[in-house]
Amino acid sequence: MSKKFLDFKNALVELTHLSSATALLHWDLETHMPPAGGAVRGKTISLLSALVHEKFTSPEFEALITELKEASDGGVLSDEEACVVREVWRDFSREKKLPKEFVEDLSQVTSDAHHIWADARMKSDFSLFLPTLKKIIGLKRKQADYYGYADSPYDALLEGFEQDTTSADIEPLFSELKDFLIPFIKSIADRDKKSQDTLFDGNFEIAKQKAFCHDLLEHIGFPFDRGRLDESAHPFTQGFHPSDVRITTRYDQRNVFYSILSTIHEAGHALYDMGLADEHFGTPLGESLSLGIHESQSRLWENHVGRSRAFWIYMYPRLARAFPQPFADIPFNEFYTHLNRVAPSLIRTEADEVTYNMHIVIRLEIEREIIEGTLNPENIPEVWNQKVKNYLGIAVPDDAHGVLQDVHWSGGMFGYFPTYTLGNLYAAQLYATASREVLNLEEEIAKGSFDHLREWLRTRVHIHGRRYAQDALISRATGEKLTARYFTEHIQKKYGELYQLTDGSSGL
Amino acid sequence: MSKKFLDFKNALVELTHLSSATALLHWDLETHMPPAGGAVRGKTISLLSALVHEKFTSPEFEALITELKEASDGGVLSDEEACVVREVWRDFSREKKLPKEFVEDLSQVTSDAHHIWADARMKSDFSLFLPTLKKIIGLKRKQADYYGYADSPYDALLEGFEQDTTSADIEPLFSELKDFLIPFIKSIADRDKKSQDTLFDGNFEIAKQKAFCHDLLEHIGFPFDRGRLDESAHPFTQGFHPSDVRITTRYDQRNVFYSILSTIHEAGHALYDMGLADEHFGTPLGESLSLGIHESQSRLWENHVGRSRAFWIYMYPRLARAFPQPFADIPFNEFYTHLNRVAPSLIRTEADEVTYNMHIVIRLEIEREIIEGTLNPENIPEVWNQKVKNYLGIAVPDDAHGVLQDVHWSGGMFGYFPTYTLGNLYAAQLYATASREVLNLEEEIAKGSFDHLREWLRTRVHIHGRRYAQDALISRATGEKLTARYFTEHIQKKYGELYQLTDGSSGL
Repeated sequence: MSKKFLDFKNALVELTHLSSATALLHWDLETHMPPAGGAVRGKTISLLSALVHEKFTSPEFEALITELKEASDGGVLSDEEACVVREVWRDFSREKKLPKEFVEDLSQVTSDAHHIWADARMKSDFSLFLPTLKKIIGLKRKQADYYGYADSPYDALLEGFEQDTTSADIEPLFSELKDFLIPFIKSIADRDKKSQDTLFDGNFEIAKQKAFCHDLLEHIGFPFDRGRLDESAHPFTQGFHPSDVRITTRYDQRNVFYSILSTIHEAGHALYDMGLADEHFGTPLGESLSLGIHESQSRLWENHVGRSRAFWIYMYPRLARAFPQPFADIPFNEFYTHLNRVAPSLIRTEADEVTYNMHIVIRLEIEREIIEGTLNPENIPEVWNQKVKNYLGIAVPDDAHGVLQDVHWSGGMFGYFPTYTLGNLYAAQLYATASREVLNLEEEIAKGSFDHLREWLRTRVHIHGRRYAQDALISRATGEKLTARYFTEHIQKKYGELYQLTDGSSGL
Repeated sequence: MSKKFLDFKNALVELTHLSSATALLHWDLETHMPPAGGAVRGKTISLLSALVHEKFTSPEFEALITELKEASDGGVLSDEEACVVREVWRDFSREKKLPKEFVEDLSQVTSDAHHIWADARMKSDFSLFLPTLKKIIGLKRKQADYYGYADSPYDALLEGFEQDTTSADIEPLFSELKDFLIPFIKSIADRDKKSQDTLFDGNFEIAKQKAFCHDLLEHIGFPFDRGRLDESAHPFTQGFHPSDVRITTRYDQRNVFYSILSTIHEAGHALYDMGLADEHFGTPLGESLSLGIHESQSRLWENHVGRSRAFWIYMYPRLARAFPQPFADIPFNEFYTHLNRVAPSLIRTEADEVTYNMHIVIRLEIEREIIEGTLNPENIPEVWNQKVKNYLGIAVPDDAHGVLQDVHWSGGMFGYFPTYTLGNLYAAQLYATASREVLNLEEEIAKGSFDHLREWLRTRVHIHGRRYAQDALISRATGEKLTARYFTEHIQKKYGELYQLTDGSSGL
């Protein structure tokens, strides 16, 4: 390793340590901070974030990265070094395109917007949020212009959440999904007239839920010497280094599956961060790849493991022991069917595995038009409600249960939503491959053995960091490029059986 | 406020936010961090600490403080501004006196020394620590030379923990203490032939201890919206801002008073940090004054409240309800007497209120000679053991229970120990004044009302930050300069009664 590259690497590691300190300030804010500490904590966080930004865009760092970029272009770096330079250059050149005043402006507007959105949602009144949303949209279109783009300004924003991915890449995937899901959901709705919604109701003591989630994590092999499980208003994962990755969940006294499924979801995120290469800490080779790939890990564990028959063959006796009321009296098949019941609903975060992606389709179609300027923001609720009616067959009663439900747009996060669905598609393709390659995977899971699956994901996905783009990573891991087929096949098979749709009523 | 002073204040606030982030990294390390995270956390902490040091000693900051120092000397600043400049200048000029290489050297040596000391203590073999200790002593003598001093190099080090305080200041106080305590301890030892050491033995469930300590904090008015109680190997207090101050304790299943008394001790520290002036956050006006004054707050709560008859009149029924075994069957007077039993012992941190200061006398006498070069380090154990024999009347069986028990010297903290005793003396003088000034203080405490005491301490001590030196603060709060008299009177009265020494056998 050349002296110059070593200097560069040290500068990156230093930046990562500083970001890590900022991340701890955040984690603590969400988990343990006394309530009165919020105002000061916000300032500490913004000061430290600004310091990281300042160092990353300093003339010294620019000189260093520029010199290494030239060395890399000149072909004098090793493959690994070139990869580090390529990825840091990507982040650096993107960050440099935005004028300082613009960044401050956007940060101020979205920071103010949070409270305005929360208030509008509470009052269920989109008109209260509209003026702010217009401001944000204006800034995001300007931001896309700063970045530049070939086809659509939306692509410039999408790149910030899922690099190397454009509307043209995802358009066919989303079309295929939509064509499959709309009739499939309808065919289930036609069948499912008898679902008993109160079957899993109970009064689930929080302390017992905590113990159960802890136990569940032990069973799937979450290493507690390198991680923690805490409680927060919204579940999240925060990794500081592969040796310290923490997840949170939320406990709902009436619904034990909220904490269980969110715990296993976050564990999927955490295992990714724990599986990154220690020796590359601080460089892109030791960083997670994209939001879509990150979500693939959480969804794989949540849906393909955590909602599977095999998993519950193992866990159900434990669940029934922990919560005899109501589970001791529910036969396994009835339990499994009810756990996987499908019902179009209004709130994305409460959606089942089948209908979830339609929520994303709706958001993607709308936010693309917003950013491309073909949809007047005033008409968003009308368009939203119409799409929910057309795609999910249900009526939106008010803005709180419609267009105001998600925080993302108030934070300026246009381009984020599609990564959820990309995650689902990656997850299905990865899991299908793992099922072929890991000997007796389902039997192993049914016996509570997750070692081979964890190891398969670690060597196929985690360990590579940002070495390959998503396309290359997925092709290497699964033998083909991303397709929606594995997802639709999974849904077709699992829910076709559960809802006895084997006559082909789904339209496939 | 002048523009220049505002710039200066902003720079100080920024430094404080960064130190705050470092403090959170520490707090988390001691309380919640998964065990494997230690190695990386150490690096994050040292990097952020270095950054704070770098900013504090940067040419930009030096230019700013120098300009303000001149303005202050020229008399153009307000009183408050002048005080801020005076105190920052004190810290800055002290820090500037040490060459960078020296600081790095000392930091490296003391960092390595920690493990060497811990190993030597485990093996109870001073000779294993001696070579390292010699190195540290050499560096500390050099450090004293860098700082400069009038009478003794020890004064230059003491200044770092208790500013404006020299050996000449504390010598008469320690003499008076020694003259009083040695015969007093002996007279108790002559009386106390019947103490039943197993009276408080029990098996105290940790969860119940936690609940009891939490409850105790609620009773004394520890505001949980601005604070927390956690668990760590060694109890400590960490303040980030008056709105977020956290304490920890440790739970000993065999001894419930370990957690109770350390909780109330740390609460005293915390109430000080919570009582600092919000509006001066980041400047010395919003900082605690000295280690001695800080310790006065913890000792006041631990000893004058937490070991008092009045406090237990209120808390004992609660204790007996929480832990009927063994307390339900112990009559109150027997409980109170046993809680305050005096017995010379080997370990400082386990010492009672009476013998504690003799442990400090021993350390002070030895460390002063070490730094002044009149005691050969090889002879420390011999001198130590002799002093323990002379002052406390007991034999030291091995180095682990003698010279190796405390971590301080391995960290280069020569000059720290006297602040514990200063804290005890300040505490006694403050509490005696509060008892005169707060109407029916003991009766209030016996009824579980602590509001007036908290408020008295806040207005007399906390709110002033570093505005006054200790002398001035104590004179303003109590009407006279620090004296050992209030402490000796407190001990004489309380333990004279408990041990029926009213015949004057203590020699006073």
